[in-house]
Amino acid sequence: MENVTMPKGFVFAGTHCGIKKIKKDLVLFYCKDNCNAAGVFTKNAFKAAPVKLCEKHIASGSANAIIVNSGIANAATGKDGEYAAELTAFTTAKELSIKKSEVLVCSTGIIGKKLPLKKITSFLPELVKSLGCKKKNIIDSAEAILTTDKKTKIVSKKIGETTILGIAKGSGMINPNMATMLCFFFTDAKIGKKELKKALKTAVDNSFNQLSVDGCESTNDSVIILSNQEGQQIDFKKFSSALTESAVTLAKMIVKDAEGAEKMIIVKVTGAPNTKTAKKISKSIVSSDLVKTCVHGCDPNVGRIISAAGNSSNQCEGNGLTAKVCGTPIFSNWEMQKFDKALLGKKMTKKEITIEVNMNQGNCSAEAFGCDLTQKYVKFNSKYYT
Amino acid sequence: MENVTMPKGFVFAGTHCGIKKIKKDLVLFYCKDNCNAAGVFTKNAFKAAPVKLCEKHIASGSANAIIVNSGIANAATGKDGEYAAELTAFTTAKELSIKKSEVLVCSTGIIGKKLPLKKITSFLPELVKSLGCKKKNIIDSAEAILTTDKKTKIVSKKIGETTILGIAKGSGMINPNMATMLCFFFTDAKIGKKELKKALKTAVDNSFNQLSVDGCESTNDSVIILSNQEGQQIDFKKFSSALTESAVTLAKMIVKDAEGAEKMIIVKVTGAPNTKTAKKISKSIVSSDLVKTCVHGCDPNVGRIISAAGNSSNQCEGNGLTAKVCGTPIFSNWEMQKFDKALLGKKMTKKEITIEVNMNQGNCSAEAFGCDLTQKYVKFNSKYYT
Repeated sequence: MENVTMPKGFVFAGTHCGIKKIKKDLVLFYCKDNCNAAGVFTKNAFKAAPVKLCEKHIASGSANAIIVNSGIANAATGKDGEYAAELTAFTTAKELSIKKSEVLVCSTGIIGKKLPLKKITSFLPELVKSLGCKKKNIIDSAEAILTTDKKTKIVSKKIGETTILGIAKGSGMINPNMATMLCFFFTDAKIGKKELKKALKTAVDNSFNQLSVDGCESTNDSVIILSNQEGQQIDFKKFSSALTESAVTLAKMIVKDAEGAEKMIIVKVTGAPNTKTAKKISKSIVSSDLVKTCVHGCDPNVGRIISAAGNSSNQCEGNGLTAKVCGTPIFSNWEMQKFDKALLGKKMTKKEITIEVNMNQGNCSAEAFGCDLTQKYVKFNSKYYT
Repeated sequence: MENVTMPKGFVFAGTHCGIKKIKKDLVLFYCKDNCNAAGVFTKNAFKAAPVKLCEKHIASGSANAIIVNSGIANAATGKDGEYAAELTAFTTAKELSIKKSEVLVCSTGIIGKKLPLKKITSFLPELVKSLGCKKKNIIDSAEAILTTDKKTKIVSKKIGETTILGIAKGSGMINPNMATMLCFFFTDAKIGKKELKKALKTAVDNSFNQLSVDGCESTNDSVIILSNQEGQQIDFKKFSSALTESAVTLAKMIVKDAEGAEKMIIVKVTGAPNTKTAKKISKSIVSSDLVKTCVHGCDPNVGRIISAAGNSSNQCEGNGLTAKVCGTPIFSNWEMQKFDKALLGKKMTKKEITIEVNMNQGNCSAEAFGCDLTQKYVKFNSKYYT
């Protein structure tokens, strides 16, 4: 948390408004100058009301504010839910003296419960008053978006004089009824609407879309970026790769914080004929319950890894793929390699397990991020009402 | 097991040849008359050697014999594996005085290990001698294909004078390194090659392909049917629906026997605009780890069910879908319904949990079969080497 830098022109505030019992549950992100804005949202057909509102408001490519509540997802809440999202945007806009269409709304928490609208709206004036650009404002905000997360997730990156700040929450759709992954980026970089959209899509495709905790895309998943143009013009490639790096850092923080998880799994696919195939295979391996349990048990299970790869793409055929676990070769020439199981099992007691697959077919590559499947996960997810 | 009937003209034998320590591990299914044959095989890119051989031999649409070993999958075994499968077919053909191309070979068990070829070939003469059509032959054979299964899986069905007999194994790709689902059908029905293929595809699509234990399609999954034409001509529709029913019965037996599972989950999707969508949504719900854990914990978790449905298809939108758990309405009009959680939780302590989704969009429907995710599953799958 030492090196967290706020980009120029943004102010944040996070507080407790009473949706949760004690913890912070309401955040406002704001910039007085109109920002270029881009978003990537869940593809789940049962999008939460705030997601639908965001998609509508962000279509213009600009926004000034994001209001976020945690504790209740405002999903599966019918017409009432839509009204609640609209009114939250309306009240926020009024308090800030901006247009309603410049306000984005996000919710995360229990699905099916209705939002206590009055608690939010009555706290808004105070929230606006406490907006600031200090480190405390960043930390309060990062805390107030959390649900089952154990830790805040913040990253900041300097590219010359410009700054990218990212704040995320999510520990997989892991807590009973909880929905899910939110991520907000703020930057003072001078970057056009189209470029911003493109950079965000690339960043999400290579980070959050390559992350698997339990394979579910929730009703509320949202990633949003605001760029207020207050800083310097920036080279697109530099900006895009810095944003992707920031997103990957946050994705790894999410995986490490996953409820019930004890280890992070990183799957690297290289030598792929194209990036799509590399992404598909890496994600298939990291998402396999059988791979997740064998990593948990420190078992270098060749069959499960190969089977998960072969399950996802016919392009695994060809020159013959090679695979390594924690650097130890386990498969090549279409057969299992001899290795010291005890030694490799010992290596697998580490907190970070790497599985490498080389398809020997081209120059494309991809990474995917996940975690082990533990008895704690099952226990946690089974014992909600019982 | 009372009503098991052998179709005319088939003889089976099952024995212990020494691949496993004590249990039976070698089976021969045979008919002296050449049979029409059809097969459906795994789409995994790392197909086991015997699967590749089966695909080659069954291309003609005919076969006389199937030789099956359990204990070792002969997968991820390179050139040696291919040689082992070929030699098994060759020796079997020689013993039966038929062509090698009329022999199909299946293996199931540990991936990566090489087949002890001599054990198989030296036992073949004895196996051929013990071929018979008694109930004991059926039971021996059903036992000898098992790996981690706790129970044999046999079904037989009469359609007028003709008989379908089905024998399956599989408890999901659940045991460390084990591969996986095998199913054999035998019938004396007079039915052409094309029709046989079509009926088998329909049966598999509606049973094994709608089954999810852990979502992995293994290196060895195979479903084969032999029809020796010794019985009567049969109406295609009657035959096809009897075969599908038999396959569904076996699929449910597999789910019930799944290692670590305590409950069967049946998801029924109705009112779908097309069958493909109905299949996709039902399978997405039954495959979700979050749904599986909440069923385990007797938690009627609306958010997880709806989210899993919405995750699989955008066609969930439209007229508004309704959902029930164990007959109790939990969702309609885009919102969670009020229900007595304690009462429904009590209903969910049963061994068979039904989740019904009505898309209110058409007349198509589908079912999917799965099981709950338990701590036992994780424990079993983690503790292999450790």
